[in-house]
Amino acid sequence: MREIGVGLLGLGVVGSEVAHVLLTRAPRFSEQVGASVALKRVLVRDLTKQRSHGIPRELLTTNPDDVLAGPDIDIVVELIGGEQPAHEFMQKAISRGKHVVTANKEVIAKNGFRLLTLAAQKGVDLRYEASVGSGIPILSPLQQDLAANEISIVRAIVNGTTNYILTRMATEDLPYEDALKQAQQLGYAESDPTNDIEGIDAAYKLAILTSLAFHTPVKPSSIYREGITSLQPKDFKYAAELGYAVKLLAIGKSSGDRIEARVHPALTPLDTQLAKVDGVYNAIHVEGDLVGTTVFFGRGAGGSPTSSTVVADVLTTARSIALGGIIRPRLELNRRLPVMPMDDVVTRYYFRLSVKDQPGVLAQISRVLGDHRISISSVIQKELNAEAQTAIIVIMTHPSVERNVRTTVAELNALPLVEEVSALIRVEH
Amino acid sequence: MREIGVGLLGLGVVGSEVAHVLLTRAPRFSEQVGASVALKRVLVRDLTKQRSHGIPRELLTTNPDDVLAGPDIDIVVELIGGEQPAHEFMQKAISRGKHVVTANKEVIAKNGFRLLTLAAQKGVDLRYEASVGSGIPILSPLQQDLAANEISIVRAIVNGTTNYILTRMATEDLPYEDALKQAQQLGYAESDPTNDIEGIDAAYKLAILTSLAFHTPVKPSSIYREGITSLQPKDFKYAAELGYAVKLLAIGKSSGDRIEARVHPALTPLDTQLAKVDGVYNAIHVEGDLVGTTVFFGRGAGGSPTSSTVVADVLTTARSIALGGIIRPRLELNRRLPVMPMDDVVTRYYFRLSVKDQPGVLAQISRVLGDHRISISSVIQKELNAEAQTAIIVIMTHPSVERNVRTTVAELNALPLVEEVSALIRVEH
Repeated sequence: MREIGVGLLGLGVVGSEVAHVLLTRAPRFSEQVGASVALKRVLVRDLTKQRSHGIPRELLTTNPDDVLAGPDIDIVVELIGGEQPAHEFMQKAISRGKHVVTANKEVIAKNGFRLLTLAAQKGVDLRYEASVGSGIPILSPLQQDLAANEISIVRAIVNGTTNYILTRMATEDLPYEDALKQAQQLGYAESDPTNDIEGIDAAYKLAILTSLAFHTPVKPSSIYREGITSLQPKDFKYAAELGYAVKLLAIGKSSGDRIEARVHPALTPLDTQLAKVDGVYNAIHVEGDLVGTTVFFGRGAGGSPTSSTVVADVLTTARSIALGGIIRPRLELNRRLPVMPMDDVVTRYYFRLSVKDQPGVLAQISRVLGDHRISISSVIQKELNAEAQTAIIVIMTHPSVERNVRTTVAELNALPLVEEVSALIRVEH
Repeated sequence: MREIGVGLLGLGVVGSEVAHVLLTRAPRFSEQVGASVALKRVLVRDLTKQRSHGIPRELLTTNPDDVLAGPDIDIVVELIGGEQPAHEFMQKAISRGKHVVTANKEVIAKNGFRLLTLAAQKGVDLRYEASVGSGIPILSPLQQDLAANEISIVRAIVNGTTNYILTRMATEDLPYEDALKQAQQLGYAESDPTNDIEGIDAAYKLAILTSLAFHTPVKPSSIYREGITSLQPKDFKYAAELGYAVKLLAIGKSSGDRIEARVHPALTPLDTQLAKVDGVYNAIHVEGDLVGTTVFFGRGAGGSPTSSTVVADVLTTARSIALGGIIRPRLELNRRLPVMPMDDVVTRYYFRLSVKDQPGVLAQISRVLGDHRISISSVIQKELNAEAQTAIIVIMTHPSVERNVRTTVAELNALPLVEEVSALIRVEH
């Protein structure tokens, strides 16, 4: 039986799981693939470090070329993460005719198109299913099972850390800082959580999702991004009264000649599948013209779910090698659709204002909204503090242009009766 | 550019959609596949029938061999449905070296293993993603993206007709007969709804799901089946009070040496994804040892979603042909795990009893349950009819053996104070 050699770059949380699965399930995988799939070498930084999972020491090396240029290596699995040296390693591996499997959302989001083009030239595969949604099969279904569709919408919860924090804020009325601290204690958030809470991680994943869904290269830098740090527990409460959950959504839409791509907190109707995704779970909602709505749900992070997907990509690649045809990565980015400026986006909005509890305040606010052609779909007014005579007004609008909404907020903040526009959250459904 | 010829068997609801999509999106598909994908011939019963979607008349034929043996046909798409002549046509097509794509759950459930074996011998592909969950990608993710896992559980809502009926019963307190009538009026249920309401359709789909998940051939006839006709609206109400929805579930579990495979109504905790699947939607919950829980959700029936999947299978097959390697269907049914007899199944149960409203009745019932080692986890007792002095008792049990439960029901029915055990529904989570 032919042997297909696998080289691993990185032996962290995911790398260790992948190595363990490849080593312990080898006989079963050989049967599935029709060739033996053998882990041949693993790049680590420190040979002396204690390893769990009993990876044989003789597989370890500190020399990248042992993996990238090893003549017995057919498939290179990149699990170092971050942009460099991961990107350089992948380039080298592909240039030397190795197939590559990766979980690296940053490199794929920033350089995926170039890497795929290089892989196509070299006749090797580049698979990256684990870069979005970790254990959830989504990129392969999007490219293969939904290939007949024109996709119009991709709407996703793709960051488990922020979804965990938002879930705690919603269910336990916790302030953001406390929910973050809990997430850090449980290992769901890093000590520097910037990438997650500012939506950077979600934007990488959205760049990949929108590129594949709309067949156009989408740069992460072109994606509008707003994090979760200014959300307050009371907005979860008012949102729930209005029939919505608050989620950090990664949203992609295609109108045919340009696309929307944005990451921000959003009010999501409680009866949708996404509103029901709690804790560290992820879900991706896809709408196609033939299939209608589909949703893919599962664990969006962690060594074990990620290894499930990385190993599956290894097995798929190995099967292609064993069957001996030409191998060509899927590279159907043959459109060039610009990302719509955020100012042009049309969506519904949730406003929360602190106002002086005096007659005529709602009339004044309504007039300003009306001046900018923003029409109100519902209002909640609550007395906040009887002594200070302040009240809270929550307004849901009909679809409005972002540009007009921004001007409106500035004008509202200038009204003497308005203390401040305390929250402005987009609505998505 | 090479041309890959497609022949279609059947031009009903799904067939018309598939033909339309193949004809109108041909240029895009050629680009995706790297070869031109051309609909060459369509088998129909009646050449003179008026067709929607403007399928060119010269493509139509009433002679099966024009499709099955056409030298310009590479891929045969079977969309006739039912067992015969669909099965015979697929056999013939494969024997003649044609790749086959089908949406036929009955033929795949009953004869899939033999057809796949034949296809492997002939070096052709046999794809049937649309046979389960229609538009939802599930079989390919199960076989490809989750391939590294040991799957322990598949739990699914795979019949849109019954899920629609149950949703109406739950939300509108409708009796079964009225909900069925509504479903029929809307075209969601056929005039003879037997296949759906008795769980036959769901059992075909479960046979396919469990075969692939557990790598063992599972005959539909070995699957325990219980339909939805005896469910009553009050059970939905009591279930909701206890925190459950009632769904027709297709359940597969593997314990390593044998499997469970059963279709029946079940109480499903309200906070699970499956409980939230309403109307004609379908969802498949899969648990793997690496990935944890994943759920796939979407439209489970209809011409358009089914065509999404059938055309995707055509494109995947065409891409393999264009890449020129050996083609081999996935056929990893290399285990032989027997289906556990229903008597051995262990699960929780929901009992509803009509009893005489007299002292000691609950004590008597508890004693009978205790005699058979069935322990009670919760009880609701309600006065039903003060004049007739009858009450309703609803009991939820801890996990119990089906055999013991059946004996218990018989003994309970024999108690003078018990009018009848009016409902017995399994609990699944």
